[in-house]
Amino acid sequence: MAALVRRSQNLFKKWNKHVVVSLALSRALASKTQVGFVGLGNMGRPMAKNLLKQGYPIIATDIFPESCKELQDLGAQIVDCPAEIADKTDRIITMLPSSPNVIEVYTGPNGILKKVKKGSLLIDSSTIDPAVSKEMAAATEKMGAVFMDAPVSGGVGAANTAKLTFMVGGAEEEFTAAKELLSCMGTNVVYCGQVGTGQAAKICNNMLLAIGMIGTAETMNLGIRLGLDPKLLAKILNMSSGRCWSSDAYNPVPGVMEGVPSGNNYQGGFATTLMAKDLGLAQDTATDTKTPVPLGSLAHQIYRMMCARGYAGKDFSSVFQFLREEEEE
Amino acid sequence: MAALVRRSQNLFKKWNKHVVVSLALSRALASKTQVGFVGLGNMGRPMAKNLLKQGYPIIATDIFPESCKELQDLGAQIVDCPAEIADKTDRIITMLPSSPNVIEVYTGPNGILKKVKKGSLLIDSSTIDPAVSKEMAAATEKMGAVFMDAPVSGGVGAANTAKLTFMVGGAEEEFTAAKELLSCMGTNVVYCGQVGTGQAAKICNNMLLAIGMIGTAETMNLGIRLGLDPKLLAKILNMSSGRCWSSDAYNPVPGVMEGVPSGNNYQGGFATTLMAKDLGLAQDTATDTKTPVPLGSLAHQIYRMMCARGYAGKDFSSVFQFLREEEEE
Amino acid sequence: MAALVRRSQNLFKKWNKHVVVSLALSRALASKTQVGFVGLGNMGRPMAKNLLKQGYPIIATDIFPESCKELQDLGAQIVDCPAEIADKTDRIITMLPSSPNVIEVYTGPNGILKKVKKGSLLIDSSTIDPAVSKEMAAATEKMGAVFMDAPVSGGVGAANTAKLTFMVGGAEEEFTAAKELLSCMGTNVVYCGQVGTGQAAKICNNMLLAIGMIGTAETMNLGIRLGLDPKLLAKILNMSSGRCWSSDAYNPVPGVMEGVPSGNNYQGGFATTLMAKDLGLAQDTATDTKTPVPLGSLAHQIYRMMCARGYAGKDFSSVFQFLREEEEE
Amino acid sequence: MAALVRRSQNLFKKWNKHVVVSLALSRALASKTQVGFVGLGNMGRPMAKNLLKQGYPIIATDIFPESCKELQDLGAQIVDCPAEIADKTDRIITMLPSSPNVIEVYTGPNGILKKVKKGSLLIDSSTIDPAVSKEMAAATEKMGAVFMDAPVSGGVGAANTAKLTFMVGGAEEEFTAAKELLSCMGTNVVYCGQVGTGQAAKICNNMLLAIGMIGTAETMNLGIRLGLDPKLLAKILNMSSGRCWSSDAYNPVPGVMEGVPSGNNYQGGFATTLMAKDLGLAQDTATDTKTPVPLGSLAHQIYRMMCARGYAGKDFSSVFQFLREEEEE
Repeated sequence: MAALVRRSQNLFKKWNKHVVVSLALSRALASKTQVGFVGLGNMGRPMAKNLLKQGYPIIATDIFPESCKELQDLGAQIVDCPAEIADKTDRIITMLPSSPNVIEVYTGPNGILKKVKKGSLLIDSSTIDPAVSKEMAAATEKMGAVFMDAPVSGGVGAANTAKLTFMVGGAEEEFTAAKELLSCMGTNVVYCGQVGTGQAAKICNNMLLAIGMIGTAETMNLGIRLGLDPKLLAKILNMSSGRCWSSDAYNPVPGVMEGVPSGNNYQGGFATTLMAKDLGLAQDTATDTKTPVPLGSLAHQIYRMMCARGYAGKDFSSVFQFLREEEEE
Repeated sequence: MAALVRRSQNLFKKWNKHVVVSLALSRALASKTQVGFVGLGNMGRPMAKNLLKQGYPIIATDIFPESCKELQDLGAQIVDCPAEIADKTDRIITMLPSSPNVIEVYTGPNGILKKVKKGSLLIDSSTIDPAVSKEMAAATEKMGAVFMDAPVSGGVGAANTAKLTFMVGGAEEEFTAAKELLSCMGTNVVYCGQVGTGQAAKICNNMLLAIGMIGTAETMNLGIRLGLDPKLLAKILNMSSGRCWSSDAYNPVPGVMEGVPSGNNYQGGFATTLMAKDLGLAQDTATDTKTPVPLGSLAHQIYRMMCARGYAGKDFSSVFQFLREEEEE
Repeated sequence: MAALVRRSQNLFKKWNKHVVVSLALSRALASKTQVGFVGLGNMGRPMAKNLLKQGYPIIATDIFPESCKELQDLGAQIVDCPAEIADKTDRIITMLPSSPNVIEVYTGPNGILKKVKKGSLLIDSSTIDPAVSKEMAAATEKMGAVFMDAPVSGGVGAANTAKLTFMVGGAEEEFTAAKELLSCMGTNVVYCGQVGTGQAAKICNNMLLAIGMIGTAETMNLGIRLGLDPKLLAKILNMSSGRCWSSDAYNPVPGVMEGVPSGNNYQGGFATTLMAKDLGLAQDTATDTKTPVPLGSLAHQIYRMMCARGYAGKDFSSVFQFLREEEEE
Repeated sequence: MAALVRRSQNLFKKWNKHVVVSLALSRALASKTQVGFVGLGNMGRPMAKNLLKQGYPIIATDIFPESCKELQDLGAQIVDCPAEIADKTDRIITMLPSSPNVIEVYTGPNGILKKVKKGSLLIDSSTIDPAVSKEMAAATEKMGAVFMDAPVSGGVGAANTAKLTFMVGGAEEEFTAAKELLSCMGTNVVYCGQVGTGQAAKICNNMLLAIGMIGTAETMNLGIRLGLDPKLLAKILNMSSGRCWSSDAYNPVPGVMEGVPSGNNYQGGFATTLMAKDLGLAQDTATDTKTPVPLGSLAHQIYRMMCARGYAGKDFSSVFQFLREEEEE
């Protein structure tokens, strides 16, 4: 189906390019006009609130009406569907759980593209397959509008405090416009390249994060078994070539660091099931591009096994607990 | 056989304890007296030279006489075997390639223990199985002397510039005496705990290092395939939760960093075959202690496969090259 | 996009059910009438020839005109595109390299579905993602026709000698009609269940095959290193619980068996790149269904690494060669 | 220490060779004289009973006196230690849990070698590291006696019914003498080559068995998720290239086969902890010989993780249960 989209889009490209550029100009001048927001879940809600705080009027929607209540109380206009938002504003941010939701919100019967205005800027902050981002960008471009992928890192905590990192893919000339909005919700807004590279950067980071975390958990466990004090081992690793974010900023061993999920029975943080999802995306893109990712692939399998064994809702650093011997023969 | 050693040692322990302490005192006063050195390979030679530079007379040996030439020219006394060194000095450092060499040098027919003086301090800087370190410590203690394991990190470069890190295991009351000598050869001398914990720390660090390196190589490769610029990707990882020593200090992708082996066709650095050896030790200790190390184990296998495919002598960051697609179907 | 298809198909379902059944009846009576064939590659060509041999007139097409020459000489009618075939016959077999080709041949602008007659039987023998098979089945059903997936095992050799195994998914009441044609090309035609289960069975078999092959290669290599004669080891495994198809019917060690690729420098057989492709499908379906497949996943990575190291065109049993040590440090 | 043994043994070799051969002759004539047995655990007890049944007087010992009771009631002579057995008979079978036990029973202060008669035949049926078998053989040869390794497959069931398989390593000219005794306890007695190859064959078989079992469990699980009936999937695999002992003789999915542990809540059979032990031996020998065993190594880790998660005592086919999703996010 994607092929159909790609074929027809080429006819429109040249003409649209001109229109998009001139409309983008008028959009840039329209700062602090209404911004659309689709997806008011645990991440989307605080993000939209931060836009509101910065003085942007919000028009929003979510498939669960109860998710809209809080925003409405704060003054946001709530509407029934993404198409209605597209009809009323030319800057829209979407924050959705997975690829099928994004496809529905953009190309579904009540989707954004049904009513999108020429020159609109559509920013998707969901973490999805870069190939889907590219499809959405192509379909958006056909309508004379602009699509950018801008997934985040930092989790709910950073969303609340407007300290997210955004990794942004799309036309470079649109980055300034995107950054105006994104910097209301985050402290780092990084331009990564063409459409899909925002997702690519996010996926790559999380794959290496997962590898580092499991590696740290294995290493700490082995060291403890060999008679090392865990705090001392962490200290040695952190001043040596074994150091990584998981060893020095988010150590998975209870008691080694304060203020991290390992100190709180692995509550809060970044759930194992979400890490498994991101690793699934990494695996899919690796398979598509014929890239060998042996450790990334095994990390994916380990987080998948953990989901099967009751760890889905715990922080992903609970892999330390998962790997420890519970009972002897 | 080890069991035999362990059984008999207990008879001597109490009496020896007393003797060792009093002799250690006289040894501590004897600073800048002759120091023995066994093993003058790529690591041992510069280490011994740094001791010489600090004013310690050296008495040394190596199974390859040509390795001794340079030290002899610098004024070191060269003798035929470890036993002869033990006969003439009460502080000896050993730096050998693997467990069997250590066993031979300590317990062989011309080994140190044949002539060791009571109260001597024997420091082994080889990277070997911690179980062998414990056996050597037990055999040494039986002779009324002291054994410490003190493996290094930093490689030949750090050995030359006296910037090694030493991870030291053994009786805490001997650590000061050991540190006096080791700090002539390195900048970090870390006390890790009982005998064998120096090895444990070294092995743990290198296992996590290997995991981080392969993970970084996979991730960079995947990101490049997905359209990201490698320098930009490294920058993003290094400011995010994916960062690790291999991504920010030793990046395996040619062109991303200067002064690392990836910029020099993976020459120099830490050879794949040595990493495979250290991962073999990690695997052995994990098997012995029934510790699951899934990523460490797969990292071991990958470095083993690389050795089989012509990468034995290249720096271990060449895993990036190993994983890249060379030809299409 | 798939969602769009799925949504609209439900409207047609009930009505179509009735039409399909009655047309299927008339089709069943029309045995030995013309059969369509799309895809005349290394597999498709001999398959179509075997249908010809059994007396079925063939109408065929392929994007490479030169692939059609041989069939044309044997009396097949060659046309320009799949749509033309669909216009002229009501039984069509497709045999294509991968999912995008299948999507194009069925739903493209000159695809089968543009002209398919109500009640037609469309059998796809390509090995693709079962999710794509389901999408094609849904799109086909919307047109009042029937789609079945029927991937094969056995390779080019079995295709030539009409000894393929077909694993068939789709409506059970259509199985007899499908079997009539498929049994001209193969000796085993197995009904697996609903649409997509043919693919599922194929993918599952090949995943276990890959695991068994790499496992056998590792095991034989280890045994040889430990001093065992390879023929004797194979004999012991094959009479014990270690036996598998790769050890007793397709041993990867040169000299152990005759008439297998290991005896012929790994020429012929089933190419590593095709196994890597099938393992990619297995990985994708496992990720979609959140199924942990740790060994299948690692097998995928190993075959992917082999493709990167020059083994793409060799038989997949060459993993034995890939894993053997070539040079010592 | 092993090196010490090896060095001295060479002095004795030539002379001993002669003595051993002539004494072996007299031993061969002495059939149905007393046979020694060390180790009366779950395996050793039924093995010794089968020797008794075949008319061999038994002289036995075990560190747990209560293990000896049953044999004593059946007429076996029970003594205090292995040395005493060696003093009274010239054919001894040992069946012990692991390497340290074997070292103690042979070379300990009350061990067999303290009193072994020249020309005695010592057969070790324990599953241990082949390197330890070689050390024991060398120590035995030094005393003028003969050592063979003869590990078994088949488990407690086969031990009870005298249907074990013995894989025998050692001097070929002693094989007939060993077979006389071993065939009282098993139906297959296979000569594998020099000392240690019996262990090698056992370890190789079990490594491939573990890989096949986990692979089968993953594959069956994936197929079920994809909509296949498990019995049908097993049937398809078993007539295709995916078949292996675990799929066709010991299927891990409850309900697919009768009379296997999967049908009995994974009770009985071969415990996960024992498989983990054998995979540890495989890993050790692979590391020693620098052989890459990526799947074998991951299989080891998976069984190790299972031990950590409560599966130590269940049959090793319970990996199917371990990998199945228990709960959704």
